[in-house]
Amino acid sequence: MAPNSAEMLAAHYAVPMVGGVLNTLNVRLDAETLAYILEHSESSVLITHANYREAVTATVRRLQAAPQVIWFGAGAAEAAGHTGITLDDFLAGAPRAAAHSIQDEWQPICLNYTSGTTGRPKGVVYHHRGAFLNALGNVLTMGFRGDTRYLWVLPMFHCNGWTHTWAVTAAGGTHICVERTDPAAIMDALVHQRVTHLCCAPVVLYMLINDPVFAALRLQAPVVVGTGGASPSSKLISALESAGLRLIHLYGLTESYGPATHCSPGPDWGEISPREKSVRLARHGVPHVLASDLKIVGRDGAELPYDGESVGEIVLHGNTLMAGYYRDGPATEKAFEDSVFHTGDLAVRHENGEIEIRDRAKDLIISGGENIASVEIEHVLHEHPAVLLAAVVAMPHDKWGEVPCAFVELRPEAAPTSEEELIAHCRQRLAGFKRPKRIIFQSVPRTATGKIQKFLLRKVASELTLGRGE
Amino acid sequence: MAPNSAEMLAAHYAVPMVGGVLNTLNVRLDAETLAYILEHSESSVLITHANYREAVTATVRRLQAAPQVIWFGAGAAEAAGHTGITLDDFLAGAPRAAAHSIQDEWQPICLNYTSGTTGRPKGVVYHHRGAFLNALGNVLTMGFRGDTRYLWVLPMFHCNGWTHTWAVTAAGGTHICVERTDPAAIMDALVHQRVTHLCCAPVVLYMLINDPVFAALRLQAPVVVGTGGASPSSKLISALESAGLRLIHLYGLTESYGPATHCSPGPDWGEISPREKSVRLARHGVPHVLASDLKIVGRDGAELPYDGESVGEIVLHGNTLMAGYYRDGPATEKAFEDSVFHTGDLAVRHENGEIEIRDRAKDLIISGGENIASVEIEHVLHEHPAVLLAAVVAMPHDKWGEVPCAFVELRPEAAPTSEEELIAHCRQRLAGFKRPKRIIFQSVPRTATGKIQKFLLRKVASELTLGRGE
Repeated sequence: MAPNSAEMLAAHYAVPMVGGVLNTLNVRLDAETLAYILEHSESSVLITHANYREAVTATVRRLQAAPQVIWFGAGAAEAAGHTGITLDDFLAGAPRAAAHSIQDEWQPICLNYTSGTTGRPKGVVYHHRGAFLNALGNVLTMGFRGDTRYLWVLPMFHCNGWTHTWAVTAAGGTHICVERTDPAAIMDALVHQRVTHLCCAPVVLYMLINDPVFAALRLQAPVVVGTGGASPSSKLISALESAGLRLIHLYGLTESYGPATHCSPGPDWGEISPREKSVRLARHGVPHVLASDLKIVGRDGAELPYDGESVGEIVLHGNTLMAGYYRDGPATEKAFEDSVFHTGDLAVRHENGEIEIRDRAKDLIISGGENIASVEIEHVLHEHPAVLLAAVVAMPHDKWGEVPCAFVELRPEAAPTSEEELIAHCRQRLAGFKRPKRIIFQSVPRTATGKIQKFLLRKVASELTLGRGE
Repeated sequence: MAPNSAEMLAAHYAVPMVGGVLNTLNVRLDAETLAYILEHSESSVLITHANYREAVTATVRRLQAAPQVIWFGAGAAEAAGHTGITLDDFLAGAPRAAAHSIQDEWQPICLNYTSGTTGRPKGVVYHHRGAFLNALGNVLTMGFRGDTRYLWVLPMFHCNGWTHTWAVTAAGGTHICVERTDPAAIMDALVHQRVTHLCCAPVVLYMLINDPVFAALRLQAPVVVGTGGASPSSKLISALESAGLRLIHLYGLTESYGPATHCSPGPDWGEISPREKSVRLARHGVPHVLASDLKIVGRDGAELPYDGESVGEIVLHGNTLMAGYYRDGPATEKAFEDSVFHTGDLAVRHENGEIEIRDRAKDLIISGGENIASVEIEHVLHEHPAVLLAAVVAMPHDKWGEVPCAFVELRPEAAPTSEEELIAHCRQRLAGFKRPKRIIFQSVPRTATGKIQKFLLRKVASELTLGRGE
């Protein structure tokens, strides 16, 4: 239970080296969920930053068999006065454990509990082999080297920082942790810490480019930015590039140790406009050299043609997939049905082998029998100058079954806009049946890692009623 | 049987993809040895450049069951008129074989017959897993990237080009093959092909820096040069650096898929003199991230201290070791005795974990009970301005058992020197018992890959007699 910090990074090495399994916790979870995870994972030791004293204390109180609590950071001594021990005292008293030689590459190295938008979180088990190979794939994708200076914006508790916790070190690079990851702190690190790489969710990048100071930023050397979860808009790409930040678009899941595919602008792209670049970068690219085999399959499990049109489910197979869900045989079996991992993501494959996600299977809107990808509508909304963030979900409709409903956060400094204006903006750019029937202006709920919580929006949308004739 | 060429590179992909095993042949071998290798390996197809028509024809004639011969390059059609088929005709007529999906990562991918300084060559079997992982280790060590332009000087038939045949492609880089690899052709490629990396034996580098044109070479961007087999001298390092070539010192064997360790100047070295750099670069460094575990062990198999003094044998264990010697169980068992691979190389380990080879076990000179590393004497001889190449072996001695005998090639343009002068040069820099007792001026015999053939020199030395009292 730790922020991005030297201790958190060290835990990624120390715990596996003594033969342990590292179970990183999302620091924004509530005590009930934390208690569930600690109990379900049978965690024996909880190393925690004293910042989370309140949540940790409440969590431990709920447990029948509480783990040993080891505190670090400001306030550690005080917290340890009540329960547990400080990390310094623990290390001073601990026997110098010999590095545990890994005898079986398939043995577990980490647990990552999924954020669990429905039901209880599932414990994704990583093995040494998969983590090792995915980290190396990331070295190649991101271009990590001995002179890499990697800024930690992505939380290390999220898929072990997409395995970059190990990848940066494998390349001999330098990890840079900063206390805050707001735009000011990120820009300060970019300039003063000579950062070469960083990764984060798009929502963090939107916050960054919308910061008034950002417009003046001109980095001396290019910085590689890895992102994933939503397609980068042309506005985002232009803004980042003018400052010297080069985007790589990644796709993956907790179950694939983070990034499985990448789309990086290459010399073959030539000089193209930001708009064209955004179309091209919206693709999720190809599996990295060490990643799983990837196929897009139809309902019958057969691979679909590389035509940029046939939509099917992405299934993965190969080296960089989880061992399974901890203590959940049925969910593991279902995920690996037919010996491939089912991502639940719907995509097309282009002629050159690049994939492009159309939607999460569950985020697809089916309107009058037609499939509507919520991301396509979100993409159009993001092109409007007033829109900071848009999320589209299905809302029930008597005639069409479902229709799109958009939730929009506006840029504070933008000229005011209206539901009518945004719908008109969509009408010009989308087929009629894809146009959102309602635009709700509100803050869009996100998880700790910046993922939009569509299940909450669906709940809101399900209670909306449309005016007559809409 | 091919020079560095597009066809040879393609074979590194095409043969494994159809489930075959690639057996690259040293193009300088005689027909008898070639016939032995083809027979022993049970090769079914021989793809060969027409340049080697004479040797191939003589080889095939010796075989009871000759493989199908497929010719490419200038003269292929004519050669095929007598026997076999051209590659073009073969490909035109062949069914489009579906890419063979590798079902078992331990299945063989390549055979590499060792040059066999004694007895018959041994067929080193590479498996997919080892080749794959060693190639990735080389990507990290050499710093291959998407913009890498790799000049092929090292023959691809030598350990599959140290697995760089796959490594450069894994990083998305470009392979550059040139017809000749003499100094003029190398310099031409460095300047006009914007080469970023090359690898070769030190003897090729000495040829390069001794070329009169080289002194004027000033490359615009630094080029990384990987070498191994003999420690780079300070003269070599200075000459290369002044042109813009940066040396990486590698160590490995055919059995370890080429490079297993590397020593690269890093920012922590600071500004040091070429002399200091040569001392530091003479070390063979540390295993690359994907290489085998490495230990230096004494006669009892126990690991020796990291003191820079205790000499023992290097043993390897782990991912990047051969499957074994093809159809040679006893040799395989001996090589893997006690579950580690015995390199036969003697080395010390420094406090920082770097290893430094003292000698091949069989190249060690034992004089009056004292061990003398032939490389130490060679190093001193290479510092003399007149010496182009020196090789030291044991010669029999009535009193001391063995004494060092040096074979020296002089630089053509250097001032003449004498046996006496070189012995005096050594006396100032070496303990008395390490001083070579004879200096023989002659061309030093090398293998096709530039390795000095000490067994030939030992034969010469064994027939020498020393003057009374020497």
